[in-house]
Amino acid sequence: MNGGLKGLEKILYGVKRGKAMLIVQKYGGTSVANLERIRAVAERIVNYKKEGHDLVVVVSAMAGETDRLINLAKQITENPPLREFDLLVSTGEQVSSALLSITLQSMGYPSIALLGYQVPIYTTDLFTKARIKEIKTEKIKESLSKGKIVIIAGFQGVTENGDITTLGRGGSDTTAVALAAALKADLCEIYTDVEGVFTADPRIVTNARKLKKISYEEMLEMASSGAKVLEMRSVELAMIYKVPLVVRSSFTNSEGTLITEEDEEMEKVLVSGITYNRNEARISIYGVPDKPGVAAKIFGPIGDKGIVVDMIIQTARPDGKADITFTVPKTDYKEALKLIEEIGKQLEAERIEGDPNIAKVSIVGAGMRTHPGVATKMFETLAKHSINIMMISTSEIKVSCVIDEKYTELAVRALHEAFKLENENSIKEEI
Amino acid sequence: MNGGLKGLEKILYGVKRGKAMLIVQKYGGTSVANLERIRAVAERIVNYKKEGHDLVVVVSAMAGETDRLINLAKQITENPPLREFDLLVSTGEQVSSALLSITLQSMGYPSIALLGYQVPIYTTDLFTKARIKEIKTEKIKESLSKGKIVIIAGFQGVTENGDITTLGRGGSDTTAVALAAALKADLCEIYTDVEGVFTADPRIVTNARKLKKISYEEMLEMASSGAKVLEMRSVELAMIYKVPLVVRSSFTNSEGTLITEEDEEMEKVLVSGITYNRNEARISIYGVPDKPGVAAKIFGPIGDKGIVVDMIIQTARPDGKADITFTVPKTDYKEALKLIEEIGKQLEAERIEGDPNIAKVSIVGAGMRTHPGVATKMFETLAKHSINIMMISTSEIKVSCVIDEKYTELAVRALHEAFKLENENSIKEEI
Repeated sequence: MNGGLKGLEKILYGVKRGKAMLIVQKYGGTSVANLERIRAVAERIVNYKKEGHDLVVVVSAMAGETDRLINLAKQITENPPLREFDLLVSTGEQVSSALLSITLQSMGYPSIALLGYQVPIYTTDLFTKARIKEIKTEKIKESLSKGKIVIIAGFQGVTENGDITTLGRGGSDTTAVALAAALKADLCEIYTDVEGVFTADPRIVTNARKLKKISYEEMLEMASSGAKVLEMRSVELAMIYKVPLVVRSSFTNSEGTLITEEDEEMEKVLVSGITYNRNEARISIYGVPDKPGVAAKIFGPIGDKGIVVDMIIQTARPDGKADITFTVPKTDYKEALKLIEEIGKQLEAERIEGDPNIAKVSIVGAGMRTHPGVATKMFETLAKHSINIMMISTSEIKVSCVIDEKYTELAVRALHEAFKLENENSIKEEI
Repeated sequence: MNGGLKGLEKILYGVKRGKAMLIVQKYGGTSVANLERIRAVAERIVNYKKEGHDLVVVVSAMAGETDRLINLAKQITENPPLREFDLLVSTGEQVSSALLSITLQSMGYPSIALLGYQVPIYTTDLFTKARIKEIKTEKIKESLSKGKIVIIAGFQGVTENGDITTLGRGGSDTTAVALAAALKADLCEIYTDVEGVFTADPRIVTNARKLKKISYEEMLEMASSGAKVLEMRSVELAMIYKVPLVVRSSFTNSEGTLITEEDEEMEKVLVSGITYNRNEARISIYGVPDKPGVAAKIFGPIGDKGIVVDMIIQTARPDGKADITFTVPKTDYKEALKLIEEIGKQLEAERIEGDPNIAKVSIVGAGMRTHPGVATKMFETLAKHSINIMMISTSEIKVSCVIDEKYTELAVRALHEAFKLENENSIKEEI
């Protein structure tokens, strides 16, 4: 099938074989890392084109290029002016989109590369993390109607004032999903260097299984709890606009993972995947007054510094005091700890404790909604391996436990085994 | 003076000291080759700013960057599609303009970097060699009125359709002069890696003297006959719009050369400079019919191939035949020779001869207009050194001789000495 859609569409997407579709594809930095890789991407695109599909292709900068540009700016000043910073880093995608279009045309396939301002993709003027406001689709549609493959420089947009903006980390995924939504595309394929979404990190769990299908909600929970395959923002966008999303590798012809609306089949699966996150740190403040306004006094100053607090646990003690434990990104740990020490003095806290060596291990699955016993099985599994749980947080379709960082791999493997995720039909009715 | 204008303006430009001016500066690739050089450029700009001048600064791509980008495209195909090629190579100036603006702002000086499409600089849609049609100056003026230093990405423009174009070799010089014309700037400074326009190539003539002043016409003749300091197109533009142009080095504080309208002082100087060009080749076709239409038959097919013929000499012979000799760029020599061999057969030419080892040596000076003896002195000088003259062409202010390439340095040195160009007041009334 040579990277085409034939096999995949029958199995996964439920679309009629041979029906011409409008497909948005996005290729990440490793997929266009050099001219050889760009050629491979072009060949993949051509295979789709030959099947009669219309294609809009979003590209990231060649691997390493964005970092090179950022580094140039940072060598000048730690805080480069953001407008010019975006002007600088947006050249990465300009280069890769031009090179891909040149490659396609050299192969005899009409194509056009469009920058953010040429589409245009209008954004807010919050440089380096702009949000898409509106995408004008006329120019893209006109080019498609002329039989052209449309290449779009990812990650970038333009303000109404004509300034170039960038969309922040994972911005090209967002470009692709937003374009798919605006164009009402039949499918949005995200090509990366992994083969899809796995039941757990394959580097830790050797028999981790690639998921064929997962719901937007599950994908969001997995992304928020450590899975790095997609940025949350693009998944949110896909969910809102019901864009069928496929994550797959540009290095193989392996079918990817379809991210779509929840269906009955998914609900039958209790746990879809295990994720972990080692990028957080824990801070505890003991013996503060257990009365209204205390949490605000603690988290107000932290939020003011732009530090994002993930989990919070507050425990009321018999003596009218409370203990509060929360997690922050490891990079903000020192600053947050310093802030809390000041606040602790004001609140006459008994003691403050911090621990940067923690990990958050999570299980995610749509089936949990109807099977509350899943959390218990998770706790039992960790206990069986003598792993102490420091914090717990839950959502409808996720349970997260904070543990000592050194047990991360053990916990992930144990949970993967306990929920029998290596088999497609894992435990369902056991619990 | 630290690169400022104080000394220079008094001596050269005849502008009142302390008067705030609008100055367009252009920095070439070697001037912005790395972050250290960009910092030096920023410091120079700041010195002008401190003197109260308004500044519009055009930058080329960092040295080597344009070649790197061209090479990427050429690795894909020998003939990349031109629209995408321009999209690709224009990133070089985007990067350098952003980096310069970041540097200025990090030094506390408000600035804004603008791309061709942001100004906008409208051009024809002849990709890779577009011509400027119109420059909208509102955005630049608005930024200047807010006290900002305006940085413009050189070499690039935009079509009315929103496509990015580039202006061809030396395009950033053209951007600068066109901006100076559109903004009615008081001065346009071209910063490069040489200190100005010299009486001869200093690598050949050790006592070559930097000219303080030269007319547009002289500069054009020098550029067309081998001096590489400025592209002809930008000089033409400066002449048409009477933009005072200064060529100087960004590596020293040395005063440059002012290129301006011809004045009485210039006319007193017989010869301003000696140039040479080793990039041409000679082709001769002997014994063709000496009748109307023969030249067209020879030069028509050559022109059709895009080969530019420089000098042509046709000699009528007593036998009713003619000999024709002409020069073409060395890179086109083989193709032109092949064409001429075919044409020669049709015209029943006696013989065809080619010689790629020639050089064109020229003397340029506004004073020649009124002193016809200059050419004779040139011929005598070459003869004295036993240098045979193969071809001669003249204009009002230039005499060019084609000689054997191996005598190039000798001829240039001999002429430089003969016309006493090492002295500011060279021979005037001797002839």
